[in-house]
Amino acid sequence: MSKKPILYSYYRSSCTWRVRTCLNWKGIDYETRFVDLLKDEHALVPTLEIDDVVLSQSVAILEYLEEIRPEKPLLPKDPYKRALVRSLVQAIAGDIQPLQNLSVLKYLERSGANKNEWIKFCICKGFDGVEKQLEKTQGKYCVGDEVTLADVCLLPQVYNARRYEIDLTNYPRIQKIADNLSKLEAFKKAHPHNQDDCPVELRDTN
Amino acid sequence: MSKKPILYSYYRSSCTWRVRTCLNWKGIDYETRFVDLLKDEHALVPTLEIDDVVLSQSVAILEYLEEIRPEKPLLPKDPYKRALVRSLVQAIAGDIQPLQNLSVLKYLERSGANKNEWIKFCICKGFDGVEKQLEKTQGKYCVGDEVTLADVCLLPQVYNARRYEIDLTNYPRIQKIADNLSKLEAFKKAHPHNQDDCPVELRDTN
Repeated sequence: MSKKPILYSYYRSSCTWRVRTCLNWKGIDYETRFVDLLKDEHALVPTLEIDDVVLSQSVAILEYLEEIRPEKPLLPKDPYKRALVRSLVQAIAGDIQPLQNLSVLKYLERSGANKNEWIKFCICKGFDGVEKQLEKTQGKYCVGDEVTLADVCLLPQVYNARRYEIDLTNYPRIQKIADNLSKLEAFKKAHPHNQDDCPVELRDTN
Repeated sequence: MSKKPILYSYYRSSCTWRVRTCLNWKGIDYETRFVDLLKDEHALVPTLEIDDVVLSQSVAILEYLEEIRPEKPLLPKDPYKRALVRSLVQAIAGDIQPLQNLSVLKYLERSGANKNEWIKFCICKGFDGVEKQLEKTQGKYCVGDEVTLADVCLLPQVYNARRYEIDLTNYPRIQKIADNLSKLEAFKKAHPHNQDDCPVELRDTN
């Protein structure tokens, strides 16, 4: 391990939020370089420079950090429980989030679709599946009482759901877990409103 | 390990194709139960019953199989190379495929968007990124000369691209790798046209 890791970050990117949370959770000190995704939608965010390599794609970064910094694990030891965690990770990071990335939204607006309706459709469709999975796995957090990568992915998605005023009362398990996660220091510190590139007027609503 | 694993499968589901390839690659004998996704779009396909547990989400299943059946590995040993593989897996299984699942396509058609244009937009946007990643990683296959989970995800996506008549000449690396993969028995056997639920008229075009 050489110099401090560098994270290329945009405060509101939920994928970057995942990586920030994981770095905080594992107590890995890092520098942040801010990228304005609204000005450069093709920027690869998050990108992490660490151990003299450059990594992209948040889930690949999370798995890498888990392998090389196994202290304070975010995956259980048992293979079946690991599969439950990864199934939730994919249900959020694979099946919900990509449907609302900027270039997709721009394409849809050009095609005449209603952006807000689309986002609501995607999040609700995804949360229906997540809530159902949680019936079998939920403890204090997504899978039992230990924080896992599933939680790291869930909280940013709940934030997005609230941003688009989605009624979460249909998702009591998701809501309860999000409440529990919001109290944890690693998640708080990673919140968009606590990033230096977050506009001042938003920070107050934290 | 008790009875034979059971895979719930639909011949044209690219997520199920990934799991079929992985099972074949690792020489795991399994039974197939066919699910008609066109009749039941909410069916959880793929689902794998194995070792007395039930798993969903293809990428979670692939990681599980890699952990419990490490023979004939589909992930390299080196953590950085594993991250390169997983980054490609996410770029395909996360950023491309979910944009073309059935319920998404139905929603878009209801909103008046052109389905074929949408699919082309999604695949090309995704393949632009994949082709770029491959510049740094490609050997005979996606990451060097060993078959990995990235390849397991790539071939079904190339099949879909061809189905929608996307011009692949812009993606010479993807094309070359797909050609190499098509010759491998585990991939051939997993091809939609070799599944018992594939309509007879399609099988001839294999």
